[in-house]
Amino acid sequence: MDLWTIAPLAALASIVVAAYLFLYVNKQDSGTVKMREIAGAIQEGANAFLKREFMYLAVFVAVVATILAIFLPNGPIMGVAYIFGSICSALAGYLGMTVALKANVRSANAAKEGLNKAFPIAFRGGAVMGLSVVGFALLGISIVYYLTGDPEVVLGFSFGASAMALFAKAGGGIYTKTADVGADLVGKVEMNIPEDDPRNPAVIADNVGDNVGDVAGMGADLFDSYVASVVAVMLLGVPLSSGVTSFENRFVNLPLIFAGLGILASILGVAIVRVGKKGNPGKALNWGTYLTCVIFAGLTFLVTYYLEFNFGIWGTAVVGLVAGVIIGITTDYFTSIDRTPAIRTAEASQTGAAVNIISGFSYGLISMFPPLLGIGVASAGAYFLAEAFGIEGVYGVGMAAVGMLSIVGMIVAGDAYGPIVDNSKGIAEQSGLEEEVIEIADKLDAAGNTAKAITKGFAIGAAGLTVLALLFAFQEYSGAAGFDLMEPLVLTGALIGIAMPPLFSALVMLGVGKNAFRMIEEVRRQFREIPGLKEGKEGVKPDYAKCVDIATKGALKELILPSVLSIVVTLVVGFVGGIGALGGYLGGSIFSGLIFALLMANAGGLWDNAKKYIEAGAFGGKGSDSHKAAVIGDTVGDPFKDTAGPSLNTMITVMSLVASVFAPLIVMHALM
Amino acid sequence: MDLWTIAPLAALASIVVAAYLFLYVNKQDSGTVKMREIAGAIQEGANAFLKREFMYLAVFVAVVATILAIFLPNGPIMGVAYIFGSICSALAGYLGMTVALKANVRSANAAKEGLNKAFPIAFRGGAVMGLSVVGFALLGISIVYYLTGDPEVVLGFSFGASAMALFAKAGGGIYTKTADVGADLVGKVEMNIPEDDPRNPAVIADNVGDNVGDVAGMGADLFDSYVASVVAVMLLGVPLSSGVTSFENRFVNLPLIFAGLGILASILGVAIVRVGKKGNPGKALNWGTYLTCVIFAGLTFLVTYYLEFNFGIWGTAVVGLVAGVIIGITTDYFTSIDRTPAIRTAEASQTGAAVNIISGFSYGLISMFPPLLGIGVASAGAYFLAEAFGIEGVYGVGMAAVGMLSIVGMIVAGDAYGPIVDNSKGIAEQSGLEEEVIEIADKLDAAGNTAKAITKGFAIGAAGLTVLALLFAFQEYSGAAGFDLMEPLVLTGALIGIAMPPLFSALVMLGVGKNAFRMIEEVRRQFREIPGLKEGKEGVKPDYAKCVDIATKGALKELILPSVLSIVVTLVVGFVGGIGALGGYLGGSIFSGLIFALLMANAGGLWDNAKKYIEAGAFGGKGSDSHKAAVIGDTVGDPFKDTAGPSLNTMITVMSLVASVFAPLIVMHALM
Repeated sequence: MDLWTIAPLAALASIVVAAYLFLYVNKQDSGTVKMREIAGAIQEGANAFLKREFMYLAVFVAVVATILAIFLPNGPIMGVAYIFGSICSALAGYLGMTVALKANVRSANAAKEGLNKAFPIAFRGGAVMGLSVVGFALLGISIVYYLTGDPEVVLGFSFGASAMALFAKAGGGIYTKTADVGADLVGKVEMNIPEDDPRNPAVIADNVGDNVGDVAGMGADLFDSYVASVVAVMLLGVPLSSGVTSFENRFVNLPLIFAGLGILASILGVAIVRVGKKGNPGKALNWGTYLTCVIFAGLTFLVTYYLEFNFGIWGTAVVGLVAGVIIGITTDYFTSIDRTPAIRTAEASQTGAAVNIISGFSYGLISMFPPLLGIGVASAGAYFLAEAFGIEGVYGVGMAAVGMLSIVGMIVAGDAYGPIVDNSKGIAEQSGLEEEVIEIADKLDAAGNTAKAITKGFAIGAAGLTVLALLFAFQEYSGAAGFDLMEPLVLTGALIGIAMPPLFSALVMLGVGKNAFRMIEEVRRQFREIPGLKEGKEGVKPDYAKCVDIATKGALKELILPSVLSIVVTLVVGFVGGIGALGGYLGGSIFSGLIFALLMANAGGLWDNAKKYIEAGAFGGKGSDSHKAAVIGDTVGDPFKDTAGPSLNTMITVMSLVASVFAPLIVMHALM
Repeated sequence: MDLWTIAPLAALASIVVAAYLFLYVNKQDSGTVKMREIAGAIQEGANAFLKREFMYLAVFVAVVATILAIFLPNGPIMGVAYIFGSICSALAGYLGMTVALKANVRSANAAKEGLNKAFPIAFRGGAVMGLSVVGFALLGISIVYYLTGDPEVVLGFSFGASAMALFAKAGGGIYTKTADVGADLVGKVEMNIPEDDPRNPAVIADNVGDNVGDVAGMGADLFDSYVASVVAVMLLGVPLSSGVTSFENRFVNLPLIFAGLGILASILGVAIVRVGKKGNPGKALNWGTYLTCVIFAGLTFLVTYYLEFNFGIWGTAVVGLVAGVIIGITTDYFTSIDRTPAIRTAEASQTGAAVNIISGFSYGLISMFPPLLGIGVASAGAYFLAEAFGIEGVYGVGMAAVGMLSIVGMIVAGDAYGPIVDNSKGIAEQSGLEEEVIEIADKLDAAGNTAKAITKGFAIGAAGLTVLALLFAFQEYSGAAGFDLMEPLVLTGALIGIAMPPLFSALVMLGVGKNAFRMIEEVRRQFREIPGLKEGKEGVKPDYAKCVDIATKGALKELILPSVLSIVVTLVVGFVGGIGALGGYLGGSIFSGLIFALLMANAGGLWDNAKKYIEAGAFGGKGSDSHKAAVIGDTVGDPFKDTAGPSLNTMITVMSLVASVFAPLIVMHALM
């Protein structure tokens, strides 16, 4: 038996455990009729979104697959791998979202019996998503690899996964903010009704948004990064052992083996996480992450020792892992509610919204420094460590990315927990459960935010290392000697490349604005035209489905231009300027993509917590002028952190994969 | 006679014309006692700022010069050149500001007799600054070059000029926003007294700010870019002709010759600009700029033809010039009051401040695309054009920067016109001149904004090409083969480099916040403690000097950390990571420096004009909720466009020059 088959076996194990947890969640009590009704409406809305998204995606995938099949040297097989990649990612997303929509209402119901009853339901719901993502990803890679023995075809699979990620992450991001803004602006501000009030026509769309944006979108995003990191290292491994088939090439198989061990570590990590009756769920989640890291390091150490792998490779994986944790912790500092940046920004709100925004923006700018330094040092460290052990340095950088992403199962589990408990809280409030139950739901929700800070930093760091690994893979795959900034075409490519992520962010944010406008009009119309709605008359219900429909259609429509641009401009730069220009372009887009991803995620989180700090009673508390100023900052931060920022990872990965997939054609046909 | 001596001759001519215009402005009538009193207070405040700034600068310059003298191979002479560079720049700034402070009150007074009387005074005031900048810059370069015959020593001169620029631009930027925020927040918002009201203790500081930030700061900034572009090309020229002295090397002398011709074109351009009684001063300024470009192209064509220079060099200079104009025009589109971005952003204000900010920010992100593409295409175009004519490509890129900056005399003249007429308007209002006079002052002021959009884009484009030329010069001077992004140290350097401009911007903006806080406290104190001040009792005057003093001290204090960081981190990266890491670092900082300079300048200008669009009556007009929202956006934009954004050019130039100056030491002593 080949050693690399540990990958599909671990992936299957992951899917089996996910199925078991799915059944566990499903058999829990889903509460009162009212609760089931609300949960049902959310589920319906989410399914409506997914259905339409999958339809659009199917058309998109069919078009791209056809183009691949016609133009690429090994076209038909690439096209099939591409379709397969998008299906695997969609499947993981669909399962994860389905269980999230079951876990929310069930954990709300279990909260009646205490924190320690509700927590496992929410967490295991998240774990289904986490284990499905890594399971389907690694199983898919393994199948493609087994059938073709060709890492290049796995690249097609990865490209397919990235298409799904773009739709799920950017489309979901536009959706969730559209609904949020629509619900808040008309409901809370104009009509003066509380948040999550069932009279608000956009309330279900808002709840749906948490699921399609945060659960399905985030899952697809990490699916994408995970697959990309593995395939990048496989490609980097090809030339390291010549004269053997891929299956005999240890360097091609190692990322699969490490990823498989990472899945086992994640399964153990998921099994370990638990919390007592008076326990702190946030701590439990973070400890789960740290323990998973330790287990991964231990497992890979043992395997490396007994199978006599090169210890340099183990070292690079650990470098990646440690860098991920450090980046997560520094991110935490810049966004945490009880640290200087958030407190200073809250303080600045006393002199008005503008000063609040400048303060948050400034700290967001500063917050880039540690993670960029971290990614830089980690990549150089991995490079030189690998070289010291006699391995090609760039391969080491790739393995650092794989090491960082190996525990993605656990990371996604913690991350998906967040929107589940957020929804839980919403359901508890909307269905009028008792005060103590809502308090428990609140505690669970707060824990989600604590965990999120670390996992979010982790995700950005991992994406950074992954796109660097992809860039190395692109260089090797395209046969370029390097990308020297002092070459004019590379430089020009880089200057165009750095302009792309800002352009993409802007189009997505303006898309939210346009779509929110449509939503606001609809919500106003319903309040105006449905008699008794505002007064909450018995039996009068708003038309939830209409709002869901507007958010859905608009989100997918606004997604078209930025998506098409990110693919088309990449191809134009490649076919006009050649491989050198394209390498510079990818490098530039990685740089500015990282910058804006970090800025938007951290400033957004900071504004949110500065507002919460004031709401907790500081600087005048809720309702004061400071609070109003902080709310404006938070509203600016919303599309930053939930729409534009998180889509950038995906965008850069898509661009890198487009470049790699078309590299053979560009080498042959470029103008310059 | 050597051909290059056209440079010092043109520079002398420029200084002579500047002196003539100075006398012209000075002999105009300075108006009523009241006007003279206000102008006197502004002058006093500005001088107080400059005096203290020069003191700090002197210490800073002495320390750095000593370090250079001790450590560098040709230390003492570099130290002297460094000091000389800072003195020349300071001198140009001092003269420019002195005349601006005379021109403001005199053009306000002349406005009584009509637009066509007031315009030339203001414009010629600006022209003194413009011609002083290019005159002293090119004369200084020529003297250093004449005495040493060594372009490396000219690098020391350039480094000195950049030290002055950092103090004047970033320090002046912090000063001007401190005073502005202080004056507005307490005066307009809390005390409800109009803008520019003499009762406001911060009003003089505010008027001073326009001069120290916009006149002196901008002049020093362009002095810096101008010198840097010339010295970069001189350095790039050294290896192109071996076995001859510098004076015989045409490639070293050409940038001097072209710069000299640019000065002559600027003098002609300044002489041409005039406006009729009913004329449009904005148009006159823009036509002046275009005509200067044409004259420059013509002059250099003739010289190239008759002296049988290589036409490739002429071509690259024209490429730079054309790119500058195109970048200026696209910048204009994104910030202009009557274009889609400003109108849409004004429209967005109807749904609140947050939506206004997101809209402006998004258009700011999009606005980077054309200039970055322009800089990229111009640099590649210049490179290949030069190669086609048998000249080293990088030399062509440098000459494009020189071409773009050759007309800086005219650009600065138009730019300095802005704050002069802005002050004019303030003086007219504060001294209670008639309505028609204020209207004329208003018209002159609006023209300043029209001209500014084009010149600002031009300045950023020129800075972009200049730092690229500096990067090429650094590569050649340090003996590096190239900066390949696929080298781990280059990549790590780049990742750290991209984090520097955001860090610098953030520290400067937070500095404004801290300093404004001190100012606000002081203004409140004066209103509280000086009896009769708020009521405007006869003979009661606020303590203007105290406010000027707070703004001054604070600005210089807040400047220390970012300035020191930008020098120290550069040296640390160089001495730890070596030349490769340093090259990547410079490349990265150029990329993110350009991004944030463009974003901040354009988003800031856009928010400003969106507000003005509403004030002109749209979407509810002045005082409406839309207007309040737009004011918040404008306030966010203020430190963007007046403090952080414009300082970035200078910061990148300083970092590039530090790297080049210390390159010989780094080559010898770097750790890696």
